[in-house]
Amino acid sequence: MSRGFAVDLGGTKIAAARIEDGRIVQRHQADTDGKAGLDAQIAAMADLLAQLGYAPGDRLGVVVAGRVDAEGRWQAVNAATLPGIGGVPLLDRLRDRFGGDITVGNDAAAAALAEARLGAGKGVEHFAYLTVSTGVGGGVVLGDRLLASRNGLAGHVGFVSSPLGDDRCGSGRRGTVESTASGRAIAAAAGTADARAAFAADTDRARTAIDRSAAAVARLCADLTSIFGLDRVAIGGGVGLAEGYLPRVRAHLAAEPPLFRVEVVPASLGHDSALLGALLTDTDLS
Amino acid sequence: MSRGFAVDLGGTKIAAARIEDGRIVQRHQADTDGKAGLDAQIAAMADLLAQLGYAPGDRLGVVVAGRVDAEGRWQAVNAATLPGIGGVPLLDRLRDRFGGDITVGNDAAAAALAEARLGAGKGVEHFAYLTVSTGVGGGVVLGDRLLASRNGLAGHVGFVSSPLGDDRCGSGRRGTVESTASGRAIAAAAGTADARAAFAADTDRARTAIDRSAAAVARLCADLTSIFGLDRVAIGGGVGLAEGYLPRVRAHLAAEPPLFRVEVVPASLGHDSALLGALLTDTDLS
Repeated sequence: MSRGFAVDLGGTKIAAARIEDGRIVQRHQADTDGKAGLDAQIAAMADLLAQLGYAPGDRLGVVVAGRVDAEGRWQAVNAATLPGIGGVPLLDRLRDRFGGDITVGNDAAAAALAEARLGAGKGVEHFAYLTVSTGVGGGVVLGDRLLASRNGLAGHVGFVSSPLGDDRCGSGRRGTVESTASGRAIAAAAGTADARAAFAADTDRARTAIDRSAAAVARLCADLTSIFGLDRVAIGGGVGLAEGYLPRVRAHLAAEPPLFRVEVVPASLGHDSALLGALLTDTDLS
Repeated sequence: MSRGFAVDLGGTKIAAARIEDGRIVQRHQADTDGKAGLDAQIAAMADLLAQLGYAPGDRLGVVVAGRVDAEGRWQAVNAATLPGIGGVPLLDRLRDRFGGDITVGNDAAAAALAEARLGAGKGVEHFAYLTVSTGVGGGVVLGDRLLASRNGLAGHVGFVSSPLGDDRCGSGRRGTVESTASGRAIAAAAGTADARAAFAADTDRARTAIDRSAAAVARLCADLTSIFGLDRVAIGGGVGLAEGYLPRVRAHLAAEPPLFRVEVVPASLGHDSALLGALLTDTDLS
């Protein structure tokens, strides 16, 4: 089982953990400085790792929001998140700073791998994980292997077209699953401060926004099933796991022909799936 | 290189070939009896194979329109094509009839594998092939391996949602790439007898129908690039290779952000790519 230290750097928080036997035994987190460049982000990681007793040379897995290519370069895909990160040499700088056995990758891809091996996708041959949160991310695991590409783009299923919206997406595309189904999209359509407020609001406008999100996610599940012959999809994230959301996704999927009605389950590892996945890769995740 | 006999059974024709050193050395074809059941389809294959000098026990690859699962059962996905084929034991019956070394699979998936190894996808790590013809099919080849699933659905990219149409698809879904971009969809939108007539017609209505098809295919190329991190897409089929079609696809792709502007090239093996691919699989294609 995996053992070592893991860091998960997202748009709003950095979490770090010490992992033994595939379980998190100690964990710290801090707010992300969204505008910081690479050196400052690595310094923030180092602070958290020091609190966990990390020593240079210990096994370290780092996963981040954005695209990480096969050379370990890190590029924010969504221009609104991490504007200071544009094709920076994440792996090289981590090695300079910490040395030792380091892997890097995308956060949602790592979460997908963790769910596939330890969580909601255990024993499933063709599995996808979707996180519906501020944005929409995910990963695909086929026969225990994470789908990846040299440019680090593979698995960015939130940037797939959605027939249910036409808003501009952070990726620069129009009418994607992310621009239709994400927490940000729900809040914009509901006219609330954030997605949490939309779920709390007892208005038709909020219900419509949430239902459109669930319908877009259901369409994506059926689309990915057509492409991969999926056996199961696990859905996580603050929106994905909000009360009543998954039943709506299932209700929309029930309108698809039987062949496309993939099994949809809640993600089971909670918010730490990306941390657990960061140490599960044999090579890097990109 | 591959050597043996191949059969490609589509909705309108059955083709059979003798293949040596990865090249077709003799070829025969006949019209498909679209309403026939399994036994009659196998009898039609046997007629063509006999003309080619096939002897029971020779290596044989059979690819068909529709879904072929890991047990070699054949199921028409589009209810309008091959209504007599509903979960029939294709591989078992072929073995009963011919014996020997037989593989079965989907026609577009076989064509994708042939293009990847011998044609437009040679040397490309993440490759997709789309055939835009009466319907829309395709296949994805990742690092020389064909994407496949136990139920035989994987690779059916024509059944992915398209934001550019809402018509009913033969798969039972609504608003798919097939129901928006296929030759059948072009003819319906153009008000012509078939897609060929739409390309020949010098009317705004026909031009709009063709352009909508190209736009839907461009969106699919960008969607698959987001999912797989594709390096190249090859487009084949009577519509895909019609004069002026590929430039339209490229023009629509040019409106996507750079990260999603995958290279799009014409398929290079022509109409016999599925026959060539039928013998390229180590195991069956499903």
